[in-house]
Amino acid sequence: MSICIVLVGISHPGNIGSAARAMKTMGLASLRLVAPERFPATEATVMAAGADDVLARARVYADVASAVADCGLIVGATARARHLPWRVVEPRIAAREVASASGEGSVAILFGAERTGLSNEDIERCQLLVSIPTGDAYGSLNVAMAVQVIAYELLLAQRDASSSDDARGIPLASATEMERFYAHLGEVLEEVDFRDRNAEGHLMARIRRLFNRAVLDQNEVNILRGILTAIQGKRRRAGQPHPSRTDASR
Amino acid sequence: MSICIVLVGISHPGNIGSAARAMKTMGLASLRLVAPERFPATEATVMAAGADDVLARARVYADVASAVADCGLIVGATARARHLPWRVVEPRIAAREVASASGEGSVAILFGAERTGLSNEDIERCQLLVSIPTGDAYGSLNVAMAVQVIAYELLLAQRDASSSDDARGIPLASATEMERFYAHLGEVLEEVDFRDRNAEGHLMARIRRLFNRAVLDQNEVNILRGILTAIQGKRRRAGQPHPSRTDASR
Repeated sequence: MSICIVLVGISHPGNIGSAARAMKTMGLASLRLVAPERFPATEATVMAAGADDVLARARVYADVASAVADCGLIVGATARARHLPWRVVEPRIAAREVASASGEGSVAILFGAERTGLSNEDIERCQLLVSIPTGDAYGSLNVAMAVQVIAYELLLAQRDASSSDDARGIPLASATEMERFYAHLGEVLEEVDFRDRNAEGHLMARIRRLFNRAVLDQNEVNILRGILTAIQGKRRRAGQPHPSRTDASR
Repeated sequence: MSICIVLVGISHPGNIGSAARAMKTMGLASLRLVAPERFPATEATVMAAGADDVLARARVYADVASAVADCGLIVGATARARHLPWRVVEPRIAAREVASASGEGSVAILFGAERTGLSNEDIERCQLLVSIPTGDAYGSLNVAMAVQVIAYELLLAQRDASSSDDARGIPLASATEMERFYAHLGEVLEEVDFRDRNAEGHLMARIRRLFNRAVLDQNEVNILRGILTAIQGKRRRAGQPHPSRTDASR
């Protein structure tokens, strides 16, 4: 997989060095700089510590268009909620999407300047936006810190994908597919008369929270739905009566 | 919940400021400093940016013992694999344990000095160690970056716990409980003759990966096992024959 981190219009060279170190700790090597205020710079080298090789191989571009020209998927990191029709996801989901898109060419992840973030023009080049969740009191992560968090999620997602022979290239389950899964599960729970003694009425909410944390891909949802179908099929073949239901909900 | 970040023996005041900013972005406010080389310091204030209030309220201690005296759970962040009989977990799991321990008093999370990390003596005060996974080439995160990653996981875990009325105080499922769950699921899959067409023989490996990502607590495992028991019970009451099995595996 080829993932490059693209830093756009960074003012403080120290942040470039810190971002390089953050990348290398998470196994990323390809750094691209769009119009940095100062680079190369001593502060960058100092902050890079053992990631000076990432810094040495960083390429500088005049604009975002040329920096991402060879990339198939372009992801923008943004703190502000934008009133734009882009899909904004959290790092965990973005990382799983990037890992599964790896077969289809290079991925660029864009981070904007310290004060302003990405411009609307940069955002318009992105297919996906990623926003790091924050506390209410203060939502402004340092740009290199944002690189660290997203690179950390990428490492976990890549590790997860590579532990499987075939997880790459499998898209995540859509919200609609997840709803169909929950509906199917609800059906089975009804058919087996499951009443939860621990959840106190919050059963489906708890089950949703559990599966949402895992961020399922389409194969995984298909496996789970296959299991549910097998449970229903076995019960029906055994002559067990079951409540009427509409197959349209599948 | 009360979580304090304890920085031990930090050399560069800039890292203290960066850590304060990392904390505040993730909703953490309580910073404790053990024997910092220089503090207060201009570099700390500059790097803290909008988290100057966290810095202003930081308390300085002479040693780790006094810094964690009021804390019920002490977690140590460590990069090195230690040949010590402590449990070492990844940030996601540590964060879920911290969130569920919140009812039982304050939690301290210790981070060591830039060059050396926590000493063995500091480690011995910890009940749990947390280690951030890294790439193979370079595993040395800047200390404030490590605070950011762990604080980020804490935010997610707390959000997850607070979206439930009763998730606090529920311990995570142990490895043994997870194995029993997988064995129980395997039994049910056999009883319903489930053969997966997508997983090509890796079915249980995929299912394990999925649930491992979610990091289940004991209530969640109990709910899933309850569902499995309901499925089996319903089938048996319907007079469906089932393969012999040993209840001892439960």
